[in-house]
Amino acid sequence: MSILAFTKGHGTGNDFVLFTDPEGEIELTPEQIRMLCDRRFGVGADGVIRAVRSRAIPEGAAILEAEPEAEWFMDYWNADGSPSEMCGNGIRVYAHYLIEEGLVAPERRDTLPIGTRAGVKDVLAGASGYTVDLGRWRLGDDSLVSARGLHVARPGLGIDVGNPHVVTVLADDAKLDGLDLTEAPGLDPAPEHGANVEFVVPEDPLLKDGVARIRMRVHERGSGETLSCGTGAAAAALAFRHWGGEGMPSSWSVEVPGGRLGVRMFPTEEGEHVSLSGPAELVYTGTIDLP
Amino acid sequence: MSILAFTKGHGTGNDFVLFTDPEGEIELTPEQIRMLCDRRFGVGADGVIRAVRSRAIPEGAAILEAEPEAEWFMDYWNADGSPSEMCGNGIRVYAHYLIEEGLVAPERRDTLPIGTRAGVKDVLAGASGYTVDLGRWRLGDDSLVSARGLHVARPGLGIDVGNPHVVTVLADDAKLDGLDLTEAPGLDPAPEHGANVEFVVPEDPLLKDGVARIRMRVHERGSGETLSCGTGAAAAALAFRHWGGEGMPSSWSVEVPGGRLGVRMFPTEEGEHVSLSGPAELVYTGTIDLP
Repeated sequence: MSILAFTKGHGTGNDFVLFTDPEGEIELTPEQIRMLCDRRFGVGADGVIRAVRSRAIPEGAAILEAEPEAEWFMDYWNADGSPSEMCGNGIRVYAHYLIEEGLVAPERRDTLPIGTRAGVKDVLAGASGYTVDLGRWRLGDDSLVSARGLHVARPGLGIDVGNPHVVTVLADDAKLDGLDLTEAPGLDPAPEHGANVEFVVPEDPLLKDGVARIRMRVHERGSGETLSCGTGAAAAALAFRHWGGEGMPSSWSVEVPGGRLGVRMFPTEEGEHVSLSGPAELVYTGTIDLP
Repeated sequence: MSILAFTKGHGTGNDFVLFTDPEGEIELTPEQIRMLCDRRFGVGADGVIRAVRSRAIPEGAAILEAEPEAEWFMDYWNADGSPSEMCGNGIRVYAHYLIEEGLVAPERRDTLPIGTRAGVKDVLAGASGYTVDLGRWRLGDDSLVSARGLHVARPGLGIDVGNPHVVTVLADDAKLDGLDLTEAPGLDPAPEHGANVEFVVPEDPLLKDGVARIRMRVHERGSGETLSCGTGAAAAALAFRHWGGEGMPSSWSVEVPGGRLGVRMFPTEEGEHVSLSGPAELVYTGTIDLP
């Protein structure tokens, strides 16, 4: 038995067990992570985030050579016990946790560089949440999308935002609300490694104060329907802009079942980047005896 | 803001937020209970149990006149914020909590009388869990049961164990595993107040060491499919015994998705009673700021 002190947090309903292990002394097994994430027999979460100093683990030490300011590493684990590179909602909650726990020097709080398995990500703290640069994106492979509640298969646009997505647009809210995503949508052709699938409708009017507004539901490969998917929101906005053509703005507001996310496209030296912004909440603290 | 210290526990995957309020000073609102039970934005549970002294609240004080030994009352709330009379899994977890928290005198621990809105229930502590007398039962109204994954509607036997159930038997494990209970089963005629629906298959052989063994899945009205339903396990065993006739034993072992429960029928002065036995686990403790 070992006792773990943790904090439970979420970003638009995508929820995490976070704990602090500055020197990298706590090695959870995949079984322990699955137990922590189990919503009935454990704590319940979409993932586990260990706050560890970059210098304390090999993946972090490698990052420090190029970016010495990335003091903290986001050691992220999926609910199934596998490690993951990045999580667009998780990194906002992690940044909020580091700040609230007093683990970050005050002068570092506005733009916080965080080490991840996908490199260093800068998280910006703002009045209404946190913003993270997701980096470059690209068009992926298109598929026909079928789902319970859709009478005919619909064309889906492939978008890669570090992970693969297929985005399809529906006619109206009634169609979106009528979808049954308890079963994975069909993709034809099926992407080799699967894909998250986003179903999107425009709000009416689409544009308000220069921001384009859409609603989406998402089915995540391996997880089923979720309340929110950060990269999925980015993919949905990118797909809609692609369809809309020249007149489309670079600022998007995406309503997911768990809340609202902001997506922005902006030029960089290495090509266009996409950023994600949204809330981060810490809900409670706990202590558990790990078997 | 008020700070609530709580413990999370479960019985065969039916899970609860428990807290101690001996003098009845903490009145949670339905909104706070719904927030606590929310699995993404709160703690996550099927219900909330307040440990309060019977003398501290009117429902408890009324019970004490007839049964002065029922020192503690199980103040049970459903995830939707409504109060509930009883919960077969919850009362085992509650008894375990009272004992582990040191709230029960040592001489009271073997047979612990607990006040509930359905009267005083005696909980017996044993080597492999806790047993609670659910009281009398009766045959209810029969219905034809339809469900996704069933090709034809099947006859269902109505059983009332304080709450209404309809039990139907399936041919084999493959049929049981192939059911899709994401949608509520259809009942014809529909019971006025709805019913929990149990789908049951016998194990092979049914009888082992004098115990009859069945597997079941359950759809609870208002909750959907759950990992376990205590009164549902009792109803399933009672229905199977009804169908099996004279040779059937009075000891049953019921496998639910979240574990295994024991059911026993036994005579009393007021007619046959049915009891439920099973495990109770406390998983972790936490502290939350309630809005």
